[in-house]
Amino acid sequence: MDLSIEDMRSFCKRKGIIYPSGSIYGGIQGFFDYGPVGSELKRSLTNAWWDAFVRDDDDVVGVDGAIITNPSVWEASGHVDSFTDLILESEDGAYQIRADHFLEDELGGDYDGVSKERVDELVEEHGLTAPNGEEFKPCQPFNLMFETQVGPKQSSSNKAYLRPETAQLIFSNFKHVRENARMTLPFGIAQTGKAFRNEISPRNFVFRSREFEQLEIEHFVHPEGDRDPSVDFDQPITVYTAEEQEGQGTGEKHRLTEMVDEEMTSWIAHYAGRHLSWLKGLDIDLDNVRLREHLDDELAHYSSTCWDIEYKFPFGWKEIMGLADRGDFDLSQHIDHSGESLSVHDQDKEEHVIPEVACEPSLGVDRLFLTVLYDAYNEDGRGNAMLSLHPRLAPTTVAVFPLVRNDEDLYDKAESVYEYVDDELNAYWDEKGSIGRRYARQDERGTPYCVTVDFDSLDDDEVTIRFRDSTDQIRVPIEDVPETIKELQKDYPERR
Amino acid sequence: MDLSIEDMRSFCKRKGIIYPSGSIYGGIQGFFDYGPVGSELKRSLTNAWWDAFVRDDDDVVGVDGAIITNPSVWEASGHVDSFTDLILESEDGAYQIRADHFLEDELGGDYDGVSKERVDELVEEHGLTAPNGEEFKPCQPFNLMFETQVGPKQSSSNKAYLRPETAQLIFSNFKHVRENARMTLPFGIAQTGKAFRNEISPRNFVFRSREFEQLEIEHFVHPEGDRDPSVDFDQPITVYTAEEQEGQGTGEKHRLTEMVDEEMTSWIAHYAGRHLSWLKGLDIDLDNVRLREHLDDELAHYSSTCWDIEYKFPFGWKEIMGLADRGDFDLSQHIDHSGESLSVHDQDKEEHVIPEVACEPSLGVDRLFLTVLYDAYNEDGRGNAMLSLHPRLAPTTVAVFPLVRNDEDLYDKAESVYEYVDDELNAYWDEKGSIGRRYARQDERGTPYCVTVDFDSLDDDEVTIRFRDSTDQIRVPIEDVPETIKELQKDYPERR
Repeated sequence: MDLSIEDMRSFCKRKGIIYPSGSIYGGIQGFFDYGPVGSELKRSLTNAWWDAFVRDDDDVVGVDGAIITNPSVWEASGHVDSFTDLILESEDGAYQIRADHFLEDELGGDYDGVSKERVDELVEEHGLTAPNGEEFKPCQPFNLMFETQVGPKQSSSNKAYLRPETAQLIFSNFKHVRENARMTLPFGIAQTGKAFRNEISPRNFVFRSREFEQLEIEHFVHPEGDRDPSVDFDQPITVYTAEEQEGQGTGEKHRLTEMVDEEMTSWIAHYAGRHLSWLKGLDIDLDNVRLREHLDDELAHYSSTCWDIEYKFPFGWKEIMGLADRGDFDLSQHIDHSGESLSVHDQDKEEHVIPEVACEPSLGVDRLFLTVLYDAYNEDGRGNAMLSLHPRLAPTTVAVFPLVRNDEDLYDKAESVYEYVDDELNAYWDEKGSIGRRYARQDERGTPYCVTVDFDSLDDDEVTIRFRDSTDQIRVPIEDVPETIKELQKDYPERR
Repeated sequence: MDLSIEDMRSFCKRKGIIYPSGSIYGGIQGFFDYGPVGSELKRSLTNAWWDAFVRDDDDVVGVDGAIITNPSVWEASGHVDSFTDLILESEDGAYQIRADHFLEDELGGDYDGVSKERVDELVEEHGLTAPNGEEFKPCQPFNLMFETQVGPKQSSSNKAYLRPETAQLIFSNFKHVRENARMTLPFGIAQTGKAFRNEISPRNFVFRSREFEQLEIEHFVHPEGDRDPSVDFDQPITVYTAEEQEGQGTGEKHRLTEMVDEEMTSWIAHYAGRHLSWLKGLDIDLDNVRLREHLDDELAHYSSTCWDIEYKFPFGWKEIMGLADRGDFDLSQHIDHSGESLSVHDQDKEEHVIPEVACEPSLGVDRLFLTVLYDAYNEDGRGNAMLSLHPRLAPTTVAVFPLVRNDEDLYDKAESVYEYVDDELNAYWDEKGSIGRRYARQDERGTPYCVTVDFDSLDDDEVTIRFRDSTDQIRVPIEDVPETIKELQKDYPERR
């Protein structure tokens, strides 16, 4: 369903999924509040990831670091010096825009990684001006970290930053964690939580906002290599290599096992496979997903190789997660800046080595959320929206309705069914409007099953379960409703 | 177990529960990172609360608002003008301290709510100076909100704040939520997440930090009253009324049902009871818990009545949650400041009314975490620490050990038991050190059950399950281990 991002924004606001933050005061650009439906879906999504990649993985442990930490962390990581985007500002200061986005909109093409000298050249060459007609000042870098002051004293020594990524909390706690959790290489440390980037021009709704949530793992290995991890995902997936991008290809389907060691390291293929499998388990259509290799000029300073998992949004193929080889860049930086030993003792070789990050899977929760929404969004023949959310993610598992409101026996019966079902499942009661209208409301919030209690139920103690996706209905004894729905959930999406 | 807060801090660092944030750079006062054990426990605690008070409650829905929102929200709420503590600063500017804490430490007694004029009088009267001998400047209010700038332009119009509480995100989204979620009074809106207060002098470890996490509900009712909620918690609990505090009493045990309408409103009693019951369900010893009424001069400007649930820490009885009647203060402020209609239509009376918050339960997750830790902390006869965590909260449910490492058959058997158990439960493998040492390590991280595979297991396919709290052991067939442990969890704490 090709819903524009503006239509998705409006659908989300109307249905209690996502609101612009502070909207009774005109909002604030780049910040969003998740509503009743959205907050439950986001929570389920985050917990599902944590369970799959941290709790269920013996080689990975979690941390939950502070948003504001010692600012030296961001000096060591390179963020203070170089976490910048190029900005174009009009002479009168009234207009600012991110340079690559501006060039993209004005001239077409991709200006990711363009230099400030090149921006000035292009502005000159094409006579580009701000929308108010003003000329631009020379292009400048702009640091994306939000600053604040910690403590009662207003001085530069109290300057601190809101974290622009969660990953550095992993590196700065590496030593403690390794010691306490008694981990031996290879092992991973995970962190989830909010991160903040003062984007010059936030765009595409929650896809590029100023406050967002991350899920990150740093998987540390011995610098001379460890046992290779398994690559168990065997379904062909579109792979878009650097070579193909340079040769104007569009990507071809490959099995990850074919890619390993040729185009992709085993750790990146391992985590790519597990995430593709996880996305598939959430019923995301993998035909809209591809793996794209970073071109050399896109690579971050800390990374020797990087792949993105991208989703085909109406505004183009966009990154929903990155898989980067960060090497020993971060630990080495922190060793240099802190003077602490963050190395690990190799008992066989009797030497200290600095572990390398063979793979950093880094997901944006809000982008993942948008992916799930787009993938689940459908409209029925009459233009009513529905969300085919996987039952694991749906804010409500089952809705219970009395067929009519004005019959006391029927109403009481329905209430008792509701209470019985709600004891075991996440249930929702709705008595207002026609049954068709009630189905439509549940479809919009992604409820996979609806139970209707009708006049026959009074006699036969049976009710109708209606499936959201197929609109099929089955009739089952009331006492079997919770178990039936649990079985249906397990069989999803085979039995929609 | 009377562990000092300094000893608790040190235990938490050693065991991967909580670290000072950025400690390889000397830390940053008032900020903490949760380690592998702490992050799992905090996550379980937060999810347990959300499930009990939001997902399982048909009358409550959630939101998940931004940490940075439109700054007008904080003007309307009164935080810009009056969210301040009094600060004493030395003439040379080298020393700052929160005035009430300073007086408390220097003179003894309680200076909560003291005026700045009174602080100056007391400083004068007792000749108080800063530790470096400098005199103090006149006492001043200090706003506790962290400030930042949003957007590329450095100007006062871009000033924004990190939220000092999550509650205002509920009020500012009230209109959207009520419309989308189709709620009718009385109903609640919940929010959980980080909040930030630039405390002048953070103290008592995570009890008063600058970055912390909240769990909040605003329960809205019709201003002329709705149906009274039930008060189902029937166990006597220590209640410390304002009257008793003024008369130097220490509190007496009462049933909440006796308090309703006399000393306590039904909504506050309702939520107090549900939270006490929830705490009890997590095996918190209610003899260390009391309900304390706020004195008139403690009440916040927005609140007509407020009770705290307090826990007896080694550093005194301290608030772990508040239960406030906020009336229509916040919605009225937002109506005035935004010009939006936030009222609700009363169909019977055909008039618009402004709902009132009959109860705001507001919990600090980090305080709750500290409560759980203190309540669970014990030492065995040999000075080894153990955490008697409820199995619902324990980071690991069951540990599996081979009796020895150097017997291949035994090792393989133990590994297969581990994999079988790990499929159904959150399991942990440990093969290092003596069995006693392995038990001790699990006790320290609060693992309720340990399974040991010994030589007999090779013949009889049975293993030993050892209970953390009683150190009792039972022998069960391997195939029954997951079910047995699930049953034991259900029966906890009766079968420790």
